[in-house]
Amino acid sequence: MKKQEEAIAAYEREMVKIRRMVEECLEEEFARDGVWMPPHLQETAMCYLRHLGKCLRPGLLLLGCRVAGGNWEAMVPAACAMEMFHTWTLIHDDVIDHDSLRRNQPTAHRVGYHLGQQDFALSDAAATDYGLSLAILGGDLLQARAVRKMTSLEGPAPELVLELVKEMTGSLTPALLAGEQRDIELSHLPFEKLERTDVIRMMEGKTGALLDLSLTAGVALAEGRMPLGERRLQLREFAMACGIAFQLQDDILGIYGDERKLGKPIGSDVREGKRTLLAIMALENASREERQELLALLGNPMAGEREVERVRAIMRKTGALDHVQAEADRYVSRALELLPQLFPHAAELELLVGWTLSMTRRNR
Amino acid sequence: MKKQEEAIAAYEREMVKIRRMVEECLEEEFARDGVWMPPHLQETAMCYLRHLGKCLRPGLLLLGCRVAGGNWEAMVPAACAMEMFHTWTLIHDDVIDHDSLRRNQPTAHRVGYHLGQQDFALSDAAATDYGLSLAILGGDLLQARAVRKMTSLEGPAPELVLELVKEMTGSLTPALLAGEQRDIELSHLPFEKLERTDVIRMMEGKTGALLDLSLTAGVALAEGRMPLGERRLQLREFAMACGIAFQLQDDILGIYGDERKLGKPIGSDVREGKRTLLAIMALENASREERQELLALLGNPMAGEREVERVRAIMRKTGALDHVQAEADRYVSRALELLPQLFPHAAELELLVGWTLSMTRRNR
Repeated sequence: MKKQEEAIAAYEREMVKIRRMVEECLEEEFARDGVWMPPHLQETAMCYLRHLGKCLRPGLLLLGCRVAGGNWEAMVPAACAMEMFHTWTLIHDDVIDHDSLRRNQPTAHRVGYHLGQQDFALSDAAATDYGLSLAILGGDLLQARAVRKMTSLEGPAPELVLELVKEMTGSLTPALLAGEQRDIELSHLPFEKLERTDVIRMMEGKTGALLDLSLTAGVALAEGRMPLGERRLQLREFAMACGIAFQLQDDILGIYGDERKLGKPIGSDVREGKRTLLAIMALENASREERQELLALLGNPMAGEREVERVRAIMRKTGALDHVQAEADRYVSRALELLPQLFPHAAELELLVGWTLSMTRRNR
Repeated sequence: MKKQEEAIAAYEREMVKIRRMVEECLEEEFARDGVWMPPHLQETAMCYLRHLGKCLRPGLLLLGCRVAGGNWEAMVPAACAMEMFHTWTLIHDDVIDHDSLRRNQPTAHRVGYHLGQQDFALSDAAATDYGLSLAILGGDLLQARAVRKMTSLEGPAPELVLELVKEMTGSLTPALLAGEQRDIELSHLPFEKLERTDVIRMMEGKTGALLDLSLTAGVALAEGRMPLGERRLQLREFAMACGIAFQLQDDILGIYGDERKLGKPIGSDVREGKRTLLAIMALENASREERQELLALLGNPMAGEREVERVRAIMRKTGALDHVQAEADRYVSRALELLPQLFPHAAELELLVGWTLSMTRRNR
């Protein structure tokens, strides 16, 4: 356990540096088109990148490149490409989920709403529409720029860069969008029709696919070619396990977390009736009365703090919380098992161990 | 004039073949991910590609490649990439403009609406939301697939394919989205603040940029490298002139066209108060009374056939219709002038002449 604490501390120290490198590289990106791009569009596309989150994806790419023995500092543009990619999906996600806050700041369509009111004196309805349009276009812009950023790498052979572009556009994007669509579809299915595997599969698409390409790209850029065969599959297994662990922890934080640290309202998962493993397990193990109560609370847009507290209590009592926590830990353990097989000669594997542990050891 | 008629006829004959090649190539694209992609997402992303429009962009790429002496039949995937690219912008445009019909079929978000009602028994409001989400994700998917399609070319050197990807993601997409955003911003400015150049600049982004890359890519694929310097600029000038001519004709058809042929409701430009050159010219040249009348009708969502007919009459009487028609013809003439300079040794330049004339010689 002491070793794990050390790995996390080493990882966190390193991430301070990595984060600064990513920020600097993104600054250049902001400056590039700023001159001729309509300012509202530029602002909406870039607003999340001014307040970076955990930088998990750039971190994974760069640490992956590093433990695979690559010249990782030259690959910062690829790491930025992953963060930009992640960000466009967040912008469109927030529109779809009608979310108003992310990282304690207004979401992109809300930024657009305010710009419309401020510069065009739009009515509430017109500003809402304007914000929606801006967020759609802003996400579109960032999708393209993410791919463009990947092509800006100068060291690697054009064949390899082209392979990475193919992966981004031909595998990652379809997988991620399929995951997002599954998430939406699940929300329209009654809880009793859901199976665990539906939720896991959705998580693999929504989160695992991008972690997979982040790590695989880091390794590919270190080794000068895409990893193949068994190794490619193991990298994917590692990334999927981490993605699921991350999402399970997200679901826990969404109900049991601290609003200020999390940067978004606690309990919205309850009000939206989000199809989480936590909810599914609680319903499975609840008494008849608790089950009725839960079904009435999950998806009730009027549920306040008292109702959310009741959901928390039932999830705890039925063992759902413990179960999901244990599941998340199990996925992290599996990922940790894979690491030395993936990088048998790595000098700094500790850093990737720290990254992996951070999937669940976090409060934001 | 007889020569022009012949060029159009030759172009139209050729387009029947080109269209079939594009359709076949898109069929493969549909089949590829069909197995694991959630069907609603697949359907929303692909619905416009089942009813192709004029195929102007694939036509321009393939004819450009052909007159530049290239092995154009091997470049059909690149032509499809351009059509797929065009299509994702249409899907998101239609969401933003709240349009319900395109090519006599429901728009993507309306397709999504019906799928939501049919398969999840959603209420009207929930189905609207579902359709919106699907159209956002469907457009996103097609954006990625368009780039992926470009990378599927097998003949050209990876360096060149990478250059084309850079152009798509680093120049075309930002220019096109900037044009779309300018269009939205213009709609929030009063007519008296608009200048001709605002509208022309918006058209260059919204339509010219994609024509530019379609032609430039065709030439680049024929010649094995990106055209540079003066030639690159002339290709761009040709494409911009055609893009503007096309848009001006679109504005004319939007008010004077035939609804069945056009595939969308006539007069919606009037009801939306679209900032067209036609409207700007009419307002400039109108009498005081006509001006008042026009300003009351443009942007009036309740304007019916009688009101639209009144707008038509004023635009005719003020000379705006003639002026805009003449402007469109002037842009086409400029483009035709450039063609022999761009392709001095071309054997089949007639085909590109026909393509260019089709910008304005059309009723749909």
